[in-house]
Amino acid sequence: GDDDDDDDEANIMSILITTDNHIGYLENDPIRGNDSFMTFEEILLLAQEENVDFILLGGDLFHENKPSRNTLHNTIKLLRNYCMGDRPCSVQVLSDPKQNFPSNMGGTVNYLDPNFNIGMPIFTIHGNHDDPASDGLSAMDLLSGINLVNYFGRVKEIDNITVSPVLLQKGQTKLALFGLGAVRDERLHRTFNNKQVQMLRPEEDQDEWFNMFVLHQNRCKHGPTNYIPEVFLDDFLDLVLWGHEHECRIQPEQSTNGFEVIQPGSSIATSLAEGESVRKHVGILRIKKRSYALKTIPLRTVRPFYMQDIVLSEEGLLPSRPDDVVQVLADRVNELIAKCDEEHGNDEIVMKPLIRLRVEYSGGFQMTNIQRFGQQFVERVANPKDLLQFYRRRASHVPGQRGGIPEPDSH
Amino acid sequence: GDDDDDDDEANIMSILITTDNHIGYLENDPIRGNDSFMTFEEILLLAQEENVDFILLGGDLFHENKPSRNTLHNTIKLLRNYCMGDRPCSVQVLSDPKQNFPSNMGGTVNYLDPNFNIGMPIFTIHGNHDDPASDGLSAMDLLSGINLVNYFGRVKEIDNITVSPVLLQKGQTKLALFGLGAVRDERLHRTFNNKQVQMLRPEEDQDEWFNMFVLHQNRCKHGPTNYIPEVFLDDFLDLVLWGHEHECRIQPEQSTNGFEVIQPGSSIATSLAEGESVRKHVGILRIKKRSYALKTIPLRTVRPFYMQDIVLSEEGLLPSRPDDVVQVLADRVNELIAKCDEEHGNDEIVMKPLIRLRVEYSGGFQMTNIQRFGQQFVERVANPKDLLQFYRRRASHVPGQRGGIPEPDSH
Ligand SMILES: [Mn+2]
Ligand SMILES: [Mn+2]
Ligand SMILES: [Mn+2]
Ligand SMILES: [Mn+2]
Repeated sequence: GDDDDDDDEANIMSILITTDNHIGYLENDPIRGNDSFMTFEEILLLAQEENVDFILLGGDLFHENKPSRNTLHNTIKLLRNYCMGDRPCSVQVLSDPKQNFPSNMGGTVNYLDPNFNIGMPIFTIHGNHDDPASDGLSAMDLLSGINLVNYFGRVKEIDNITVSPVLLQKGQTKLALFGLGAVRDERLHRTFNNKQVQMLRPEEDQDEWFNMFVLHQNRCKHGPTNYIPEVFLDDFLDLVLWGHEHECRIQPEQSTNGFEVIQPGSSIATSLAEGESVRKHVGILRIKKRSYALKTIPLRTVRPFYMQDIVLSEEGLLPSRPDDVVQVLADRVNELIAKCDEEHGNDEIVMKPLIRLRVEYSGGFQMTNIQRFGQQFVERVANPKDLLQFYRRRASHVPGQRGGIPEPDSH
Repeated sequence: GDDDDDDDEANIMSILITTDNHIGYLENDPIRGNDSFMTFEEILLLAQEENVDFILLGGDLFHENKPSRNTLHNTIKLLRNYCMGDRPCSVQVLSDPKQNFPSNMGGTVNYLDPNFNIGMPIFTIHGNHDDPASDGLSAMDLLSGINLVNYFGRVKEIDNITVSPVLLQKGQTKLALFGLGAVRDERLHRTFNNKQVQMLRPEEDQDEWFNMFVLHQNRCKHGPTNYIPEVFLDDFLDLVLWGHEHECRIQPEQSTNGFEVIQPGSSIATSLAEGESVRKHVGILRIKKRSYALKTIPLRTVRPFYMQDIVLSEEGLLPSRPDDVVQVLADRVNELIAKCDEEHGNDEIVMKPLIRLRVEYSGGFQMTNIQRFGQQFVERVANPKDLLQFYRRRASHVPGQRGGIPEPDSH
């Protein structure tokens, strides 16, 4: 009945989870300049519509370490519009806010600062894009300095890490929220190997806490120590929110170490790589005591992105007939545009798609002039200047790695 | 009796006036790096102690057009500490806040935004150091974006200017506050000459308004049109607050045009010029109906600055004996340090002084090595690297201009 539902809601902590929003990405691009702001606004609106208790960000909120004045100004505007107001927040903070959020100048969680009316709290760690710089400050310090976010998970010493959780309670649900802002993967890998990462698990009523860890590191193995293996993470954890990886793998995945991993992925494609072409989502996490449920929501403002591989030597083409090559490539692009029209032509917001053809051209083929090729698509794609990417197959294949396909940029 | 005093206070609008605080000036200097922050904090504290209704700034709050993250962070901290809180503000805004403060995102004067608890309002124009840049934004837009200042006086069109005043009322006192952020002097001079500057004087009850104008332009004549003559300004004005000029001339000066001019001067010396060596002050303006009184307060945290001129050929020195020259210069510096000890040795905050000797060296003298000269004073002055400034007398004297003494940098 209704009473039960009310009781339930009072005991359920609901959290919008998202990461790698990369606000300001390509802000000066005439076509794509507004993408990051629009999608971040969609996410803030979803948080309101879903009536969550708070938003949890996994780092890389900003694309640039020193966001431009325009980016800062737009972000402040969005946060003021969506995160301020009279909406009550019924989550209690049981840990010491001064320790959890040292850069919150008020010494409290932001929604308890008497000088601000915060209606939708944000909790965030920093990513590698918005990490503390040589001035000792990050863009997160600015946002927490103006009380618009609760910035946690910054460590003082990379070689000896103690993670104090933010302890949150709503009704009968208790969440221990551990956070670790981005540090260099190799360094952190070593610190884990040296058993110098200590998670300060709450001592009392250990069985009552839902333990969640937010981090922003490589999850995929980029080299022997250039990632964080899941087995490094403590097995008392219930759930890990993995930031930094841009591919949306939002469905919880069981780790061998007992916990589950949610990798929301970025909310904007910052490279035209395969992982970024997966449909982008945010999650609504509903935690009740020691269990949780996840609702996933596809984002509607994300620019469609289609990518395809083509091996010229397998298409019946001749190196001596470059015009035929260009024609085949153009046909493929047109097919992808047609596919986009079909899938997204009736969207509320219709956007020119990102298209990427990866062209393997070994066998005596020449590279096509990429810029000239794109000119015919100027009106129909968002990235006419880099539609094509040429690469050659590597001679020897390393197991578990794709041929010579270039790695995406740092995400 | 007490009742009368209470009545009085309810009808008196009290305003702390200051300008050209140049926050962030030399922030990386090991000796002087904190000066601008310290003095701005002193000013904010004075505003509280004097219990003013608001603070009025005349531009150049920041030294850099894009203040560093450190400067922004420190400024936000100061503004949160001193300008937020439950202190009530009893000044009404009668004009349209959306028109007066277009970059206040809340659409109100900052202390009426329901999402912020503003205890000490700041009203400000921009200066030439913190004017809107090619991104269309200024540092003032960031501060008003986070609701910490009320930014007014930005014009859309320099060739055709309409100044809409902020209309403020407290009890029986009505203040029409006109503001004009810094624009290029030559352009503004021309616009005035073309009669294209219109001050929108309130139409009703004209005799009841105290009319004040805040601007940030050259007051001294730097060239035929590179300044704003006082006679350009409307004679209905009662008081002009003149920013940009760094010399403290805080005692009101009668203009031929009827109004009085207060030039508070900068709160920090950004050049070692004569005008900057005048003792620095802020003012407490108390307006009651059509009259006002000014209390001036010397700032206690400003680094002492002594400057002196010396003409080598008048000191009985010989060009052939450079060591004697160095000795005489060192003696002068020592005298100025001794004078500082005498005048400031018992200050609450004892600071190494700024010292500047201007050395006229015509008559065959060589310039002394400035850096080497300064080494002997490293422990005793704040500017060992530029104690000395050498110049030669100009052959022909232009009336009204000093000899070859260099002009100070843009302020
Ligand atoms: Mn990242
Ligand atoms: Mn990222
Ligand atoms: Mn100036
Ligand atoms: Mn100035």
